[in-house]
Amino acid sequence: MNGRPSYDSKLLKILRESACVFAEKGYHRASIRDISGATGVSLSGLYYYFSSKEELLFLIQDHCFGTLLHTLEEDLEGVQDPETRLRILVRNHLHFFVDNVKEMKVLSHEADVLSGDFKRKIHERKRSYARTLSMILSALQRAASSPGSESMDSPELESKNPGDHTDPRLRAATFALFGMMNWIYTWYNLERDLPVDELEEEFLHLFLHGYLTPRFPSGAPALPEGPSMGSSSIWRRE
Amino acid sequence: MNGRPSYDSKLLKILRESACVFAEKGYHRASIRDISGATGVSLSGLYYYFSSKEELLFLIQDHCFGTLLHTLEEDLEGVQDPETRLRILVRNHLHFFVDNVKEMKVLSHEADVLSGDFKRKIHERKRSYARTLSMILSALQRAASSPGSESMDSPELESKNPGDHTDPRLRAATFALFGMMNWIYTWYNLERDLPVDELEEEFLHLFLHGYLTPRFPSGAPALPEGPSMGSSSIWRRE
Repeated sequence: MNGRPSYDSKLLKILRESACVFAEKGYHRASIRDISGATGVSLSGLYYYFSSKEELLFLIQDHCFGTLLHTLEEDLEGVQDPETRLRILVRNHLHFFVDNVKEMKVLSHEADVLSGDFKRKIHERKRSYARTLSMILSALQRAASSPGSESMDSPELESKNPGDHTDPRLRAATFALFGMMNWIYTWYNLERDLPVDELEEEFLHLFLHGYLTPRFPSGAPALPEGPSMGSSSIWRRE
Repeated sequence: MNGRPSYDSKLLKILRESACVFAEKGYHRASIRDISGATGVSLSGLYYYFSSKEELLFLIQDHCFGTLLHTLEEDLEGVQDPETRLRILVRNHLHFFVDNVKEMKVLSHEADVLSGDFKRKIHERKRSYARTLSMILSALQRAASSPGSESMDSPELESKNPGDHTDPRLRAATFALFGMMNWIYTWYNLERDLPVDELEEEFLHLFLHGYLTPRFPSGAPALPEGPSMGSSSIWRRE
């Protein structure tokens, strides 16, 4: 089940406890001593696994993303229909977020902390994940605009630069969906909100109908001109 | 233009520079000395305006949210049609975010730092903002399900507990839209992405069609059962 056999069970326990410490105290306020206290592992025991707090943060993020991507790859294997692929991605993402809320907070909040090689590796994982979603969305749009040819086997369809990250509409749709899903760490409460399976349906419904509905440029009601049509910098508005 | 006449221009300059320092260094790593260096205001000059770094963070967040809400209120005044109200909110939010990207980063990233009264006041502003969106979405749904009666003047419509924050579907839709919009601080790049007016159209299109399309429970394709249907904690999956 785990794509990273090099992470032994003691290290995994350290990463789990450290994620809680970082999520609660914030990365910068948390010290390796706090980590030692929370894990019950001595400082020298910790430094056997990593040589700095930054490397520890990298290991948490790398393990987290690695597992997310590995599970997704497994679940997508052999599935061709783009809508089903999208459902699998959304399901995987939401379940993963709800089940790993502290790690997700650390991933989102401490995204800018890593530097050098650590940063490069995590960025590569993020890019690869965004590319996967973009390619699914791109295939979905093509399937919707030519029903009956939604098979991914057609070489002509494949050659149309699917998931092209320079297409600004595709980027907007990709990150709109990621935003919808990632934001749950700020509000989702298992006790008062929809169970995660229903949340998944709700998000898919919201997103899919909008994404697949053709645009009618004149369909939007006219907006009254207001002061916020110009720049709305809080500073320049004084 | 500004709803907070008590913020004098020197304080506003301090808040603006401090937001940059916090956005770049992170709140916890930034010191009041850094703020003094960036603003060119002496420590005693700074302490004339606030008595702690936490109060400074509060002032940035309070000014930022206050301006956002004040502008929204102005723009919504006299507008009854719920779709137009939604368009105004989305436009206001996106323009505001794009024009105040450092402040938004500080708002999003340092949401948990404040305590006591500071926390309470910012939470109240957030709740009020979420309530405004929920009420608009709730009115929109009612207008869509009974076309011709979309006027907000009808007392029967008003009494149906609009924007009820305990309705989990309404909560999911409200925060899905906030997530879509707030997440832009992680990816939006003025040079390669859609201009903000087109982004606004894109998001409204995505959201509105999904939100207003009736649900057909059996319309979803069946998902293959996969390992991620159960818990997907990265830790329990070992």
